[in-house]
Amino acid sequence: MKPLEMIHGSIGKRVIVELRGNREYRGILEGYDHPHLNLILKDAEEFLEGEKKRSMEKVIVRGDNIIYISP
Amino acid sequence: MKPLEMIHGSIGKRVIVELRGNREYRGILEGYDHPHLNLILKDAEEFLEGEKKRSMEKVIVRGDNIIYISP
Amino acid sequence: MKPLEMIHGSIGKRVIVELRGNREYRGILEGYDHPHLNLILKDAEEFLEGEKKRSMEKVIVRGDNIIYISP
Amino acid sequence: MKPLEMIHGSIGKRVIVELRGNREYRGILEGYDHPHLNLILKDAEEFLEGEKKRSMEKVIVRGDNIIYISP
Amino acid sequence: MKPLEMIHGSIGKRVIVELRGNREYRGILEGYDHPHLNLILKDAEEFLEGEKKRSMEKVIVRGDNIIYISP
Amino acid sequence: MKPLEMIHGSIGKRVIVELRGNREYRGILEGYDHPHLNLILKDAEEFLEGEKKRSMEKVIVRGDNIIYISP
Amino acid sequence: MKPLEMIHGSIGKRVIVELRGNREYRGILEGYDHPHLNLILKDAEEFLEGEKKRSMEKVIVRGDNIIYISP
Repeated sequence: MKPLEMIHGSIGKRVIVELRGNREYRGILEGYDHPHLNLILKDAEEFLEGEKKRSMEKVIVRGDNIIYISP
Repeated sequence: MKPLEMIHGSIGKRVIVELRGNREYRGILEGYDHPHLNLILKDAEEFLEGEKKRSMEKVIVRGDNIIYISP
Repeated sequence: MKPLEMIHGSIGKRVIVELRGNREYRGILEGYDHPHLNLILKDAEEFLEGEKKRSMEKVIVRGDNIIYISP
Repeated sequence: MKPLEMIHGSIGKRVIVELRGNREYRGILEGYDHPHLNLILKDAEEFLEGEKKRSMEKVIVRGDNIIYISP
Repeated sequence: MKPLEMIHGSIGKRVIVELRGNREYRGILEGYDHPHLNLILKDAEEFLEGEKKRSMEKVIVRGDNIIYISP
Repeated sequence: MKPLEMIHGSIGKRVIVELRGNREYRGILEGYDHPHLNLILKDAEEFLEGEKKRSMEKVIVRGDNIIYISP
Repeated sequence: MKPLEMIHGSIGKRVIVELRGNREYRGILEGYDHPHLNLILKDAEEFLEGEKKRSMEKVIVRGDNIIYISP
């Protein structure tokens, strides 16, 4: 299975997205693009160094800073 | 939905743009380009580490440093 | 032997993936893509500076941050 | 409006160019290139961490380090 | 002589691979790819800041972080 | 005017080249390449954090690290 | 003169190669590639923060980290 297929299969489901700089975003995956891996999350929460900082109805997370995506 | 479609649909609306280095820009999205994700914001405010630093009638934010865009 | 062939041959086997920032991921390699070297790990464990932090059923590790992959 | 159109429309006008590392350049935009966003500024002033450091009749600022351009 | 030819000629021989972050890998070069310079090392040893940390039967070292390769 | 034209017009003249990491190189521009902006300087002087460190008859400065070039 | 021509003309001669992170390599240039500027040095010496650390009969220095090459 290709990483992109797994991302595609995660649309509509909750994912954890870990970014550089101790940033974590959790939300429902609404979309993505290829090959940048920019993601759209719905009902998203932002965590900085493990502490919740912000809730966002929608957020586009740029793929460049992603360390991992966990479905 | 693709990230680019959501950005396109945000034209004319207020967005929050988070950059590396604890920089945040808020303003009305006037335009963008693809694939760089450079953005034009109108009536923009700049926040450094959470503190407001500067108001700008217009600003072109380079896409490279973007962490997320929240419509 | 090409690196990609070795990665291909590691599908279904346990691998150690070392990332920048003292991050290590261990799990069963389920897939990868080329040329980005994004990886899918199953039954994965995350170690930060040598300490176990998180278990994940599945995780897509972005290739950009990889230092090495050890089958 | 595309970012490049706004940059093009700023030729002959004063702009503020913010770079990584607390560097700021102010001057009259004389030219740019695409897609690198290298800029030529005339009658330019350099500010490091908010303090004026140098005046330059002409300067070519490499696009790579740009955070934003404000017309 | 091209760097790639020298790497090719080092297959089956011991090499030292220096990476960013004071990481060093020593082992027998089994393979590489072009243009990324990802390398396969056999019977590899990892040194962090000069201290041996780990032995690995096989390791794929990503080319991005390489500073030098010494045959 | 394009940045490249200004660089071209600076051949044979003294330029200041500012690099990341508080490095500055001053010398007579002998050549450049496109699009990397690698430069050849003649009778060059290197300054680190404002202090002169080294004189070089010729030096090829890699374009990647350039912040600005001032003719 | 193009930077690449000057590098080509330095084959068989001693060069100084300065890298990021206060690394310097000195040796006889044996080869290079384009456009990466990976270099082969013979009878090379490595200096870290100005102190000699290692002698190497041959070394392939990856172009990515190069700040300058001085013939």
